[in-house]
Amino acid sequence: MVYIGIDLGGTNIAVGVVSETGSILAETSTKTLAERPYQDIISDMAACVMKVITKAGVTDDEVNSIGIGIPGLADNESGIVYNCTNLGWVNVPLRAEMQKYTNKPIFIDNDANVAALAESCAGVSVGCKSSVMITLGTGVGGGIVINGKIWPGAHGRGGEIGHMTLVPDGVPCTCGNNGCVERYCSATALIRFAKQECYTYPNNAFLTKAGGDLNRINAKLVIDAAKEGDASALRVYNEFIHYLAMTINNITAFFDPEIIVLGGGVSRAGQYMLDSLREQLPRLQMFKTLAAPRVELALLGNEAGIIGAAMLGK
Amino acid sequence: MVYIGIDLGGTNIAVGVVSETGSILAETSTKTLAERPYQDIISDMAACVMKVITKAGVTDDEVNSIGIGIPGLADNESGIVYNCTNLGWVNVPLRAEMQKYTNKPIFIDNDANVAALAESCAGVSVGCKSSVMITLGTGVGGGIVINGKIWPGAHGRGGEIGHMTLVPDGVPCTCGNNGCVERYCSATALIRFAKQECYTYPNNAFLTKAGGDLNRINAKLVIDAAKEGDASALRVYNEFIHYLAMTINNITAFFDPEIIVLGGGVSRAGQYMLDSLREQLPRLQMFKTLAAPRVELALLGNEAGIIGAAMLGK
Repeated sequence: MVYIGIDLGGTNIAVGVVSETGSILAETSTKTLAERPYQDIISDMAACVMKVITKAGVTDDEVNSIGIGIPGLADNESGIVYNCTNLGWVNVPLRAEMQKYTNKPIFIDNDANVAALAESCAGVSVGCKSSVMITLGTGVGGGIVINGKIWPGAHGRGGEIGHMTLVPDGVPCTCGNNGCVERYCSATALIRFAKQECYTYPNNAFLTKAGGDLNRINAKLVIDAAKEGDASALRVYNEFIHYLAMTINNITAFFDPEIIVLGGGVSRAGQYMLDSLREQLPRLQMFKTLAAPRVELALLGNEAGIIGAAMLGK
Repeated sequence: MVYIGIDLGGTNIAVGVVSETGSILAETSTKTLAERPYQDIISDMAACVMKVITKAGVTDDEVNSIGIGIPGLADNESGIVYNCTNLGWVNVPLRAEMQKYTNKPIFIDNDANVAALAESCAGVSVGCKSSVMITLGTGVGGGIVINGKIWPGAHGRGGEIGHMTLVPDGVPCTCGNNGCVERYCSATALIRFAKQECYTYPNNAFLTKAGGDLNRINAKLVIDAAKEGDASALRVYNEFIHYLAMTINNITAFFDPEIIVLGGGVSRAGQYMLDSLREQLPRLQMFKTLAAPRVELALLGNEAGIIGAAMLGK
């Protein structure tokens, strides 16, 4: 059997045919054009499914199911997408609409959960009985996988690592709460720390790299400057790592998974970031003599969206 | 079959015979006298087991197993207690020592985990597929139960809610870290907040209740004064509830169990505390339209130690 995975993003719809072992056999994509009615977007998703099945040279009978990863909150039972800010979707009957085009089983989940599942099926956490993935991008996403299945929580609220409170009464968050992990461990947070640093120390390497323009500072410029040893960049980077290490330690103290996987744009800092975290974590952890969750980088990159969505049906 | 449960505490050893459904059929106890060699304490535990089996009028054949809840860190696989601060135990071979007296299977786990299991077998969380218990005592303990089994984590670090960081770089904790939940949500924390309040507002109801003696302030006095509407007590109590609500919300955002159970001495504040939490929590939670974990008081009280330990063998 093969599995169709659809990675529905605010910019692109990527669709793939995925093998039992989580390899992409064929792939296609189209623009989301998010401002359209949802019916049009879903029609394009269905067209991509047809196209990619043909491209992979498989028969319809060989297709087990279709999985869809969405950038928002969905209920897999009802098949309704409650909310997708990027797409402007509220209460969209995604499964019902897709079933106008296909009679295959359709599975829907959040993109961060889907990425965690992908890593556990075909990435760095293969074979782990429990894993937690933290996606460090513009925001912070999370996904928990137990015995090969996403743990959605009892009410679909699970894995929202980005909206755990890290700093009581801290920086206001888009979710309406204050001091969320997302406000301290995302690319957006790193950039905020960096801009704050510029008000005190404007002669720093990352502002120079950004051509002196505060608005051109991004996570990569700051981390590159830290790698080069710039004192300001190191202060900013170390603050970021301090918060991220606390978040990882909180997941360890509460849930203690076999592995914690870091993905998303900021994790492209790679081994440099892993080394920083692995140095800090033992100081935070209780029970110094016990083993602790491995902290590793995600392996699958952009492909995780298709692979994980496909594996929802496995 | 029946199940023996041993609740090993710093002061008392309580032993009970427990039915399939989690009822205590017979019970006995003895002083721990923690300063003795561990061999003597374990010998007394075994004697209590013999005594309580006789008291319950069951035969040895009817005894399925012996479970032991310990106030510290144990490894159920090896049967070794790594650390029990109250008993001064380090690397004590508890199972091997008990097996000198019995050939029944012996299970060992932390007392907070055991209490969580007890509530899920015979208490408020019966029938819940996932539950998290928070024990609010001198410290803060935690236990996670998934599908009727304790979730110990992949390395035995799971459920340590008291040592999640709640306030970055906050009050130093006995664990060596800073700002742990235990420093803001325990009876000890409530008393610390109350003493601090006395330096600013000495004319408060709880200091009066304590006869003007700072060292006689306890959690009950403060909560009683809050219930009576004393302004200082309410400030202290609300601060405590604020931190506890954040902790509950963090567990919800990450794990989203079906139910969150509050136990331990501070939870004797009862419905008053539940009402305060239930008022605060919706403001903290994302996804306002989704259901959220029920927050409830533990039902079993002191019996949880025996029942949960017994149920380790089920």
